[in-house]
Amino acid sequence: MAKTTVGILGGMGPLATADLFRKLVLLADVKSDQEHPRVVIDSNTDIPDRTAALLHGGADPVPELTKSAKRLVSIGADVLIMPCNTAHGFYDAVAAAVDVPVLHMIALTRDALRERGIATAGLLATDGTIETGVYARAFEGSGVALLTPKAEEQAAVMDIIYNGVKAGDLAHDVSAFRRACEGLLARGAQTLILGCTELPPAFELYRLDYPHTDPTLELARAALRFAHCLIKE
Amino acid sequence: MAKTTVGILGGMGPLATADLFRKLVLLADVKSDQEHPRVVIDSNTDIPDRTAALLHGGADPVPELTKSAKRLVSIGADVLIMPCNTAHGFYDAVAAAVDVPVLHMIALTRDALRERGIATAGLLATDGTIETGVYARAFEGSGVALLTPKAEEQAAVMDIIYNGVKAGDLAHDVSAFRRACEGLLARGAQTLILGCTELPPAFELYRLDYPHTDPTLELARAALRFAHCLIKE
Repeated sequence: MAKTTVGILGGMGPLATADLFRKLVLLADVKSDQEHPRVVIDSNTDIPDRTAALLHGGADPVPELTKSAKRLVSIGADVLIMPCNTAHGFYDAVAAAVDVPVLHMIALTRDALRERGIATAGLLATDGTIETGVYARAFEGSGVALLTPKAEEQAAVMDIIYNGVKAGDLAHDVSAFRRACEGLLARGAQTLILGCTELPPAFELYRLDYPHTDPTLELARAALRFAHCLIKE
Repeated sequence: MAKTTVGILGGMGPLATADLFRKLVLLADVKSDQEHPRVVIDSNTDIPDRTAALLHGGADPVPELTKSAKRLVSIGADVLIMPCNTAHGFYDAVAAAVDVPVLHMIALTRDALRERGIATAGLLATDGTIETGVYARAFEGSGVALLTPKAEEQAAVMDIIYNGVKAGDLAHDVSAFRRACEGLLARGAQTLILGCTELPPAFELYRLDYPHTDPTLELARAALRFAHCLIKE
């Protein structure tokens, strides 16, 4: 059987792309370089901001997204993955541009939650991801209910993303973010979806340990399953 | 000025490739995704083992190396970097296969050590890297003397690379490797060159903190300089 090549359509942002690639490597249950799937990556930082396009009339990211998708297929990608929650608002255009499967990170997250018997999940994400409804649409009719933060809780989510992680402030005051997590859990969320790629590093940096689900990890697992690669528990 | 695209000829191994990519992202002194250079990566795990080829008559890695180099140039790479020390034994063949510059990680490391006024450096590397003299040739006449491990120390270096990092064994016993590092330092090495790209992740995974020089970091810095990108201190 020929080796599967996984294509990562990245650059949204570059650190999230590096994080997904690292997870893909560390999750593979293999004993040598040669047993890993081949991985090709386009960290295309010419892709315009997705939230700006969706909410504020910014430049359309679709031309650069499809250009990268085609480039990855041209050098052998058998499957594509996109480590950006908001970019999934343009999923259909990307999937239509190539004739290889594009794994849907948010649908995979929904399926993983359903399999684990989760009835209610709290969604931690940017204003952009929440307002464009990309999670709401994917979860519709799934039996997994989504809880979103209240206004002041959502402000704390934006604060930890922009003034904490993106600003590299290791001493950032995360008490309001803790209250947001605890609020969602108190209202019935059984797990918190880290629906922004800055949040897995935030949970690490600030030693937060609420029950959570990492969509990047679900995406890495699905890509390895696609490549018929054993996965570490 | 058009954005520079950095091509990473990787897969030797995949974790070293992920490590270099992450360093490239974290070192860039930028304020948004779009200011980062574009990065394209071929983590080509079909490349045969370099040490096996150089020392034990294993399969020639040059055909796959040049195939990856050409693929990266075909999707826009303006410069190539190879995060594998042993692969630099095949540097001339790779450089001859493409008409973009290929940065030489070992020459960059030598220049960095000379600039820092290092007179003696210990070399931690695979048997292949040491026995083919790729470091010795690059350092000749530079004024920086290279110390290599004794036989039993060298066995410990190979062990942490192949049975530790490449095998993904996070609980690997690294006490013999610690003795190898301490031996080189005791014999006069002012710094330890992490002359195998699996060793920076090893120092992280196993929490080793001897004075060291990371060729991957020198390579990431040089790639960012090539891309006219500001670098964080």
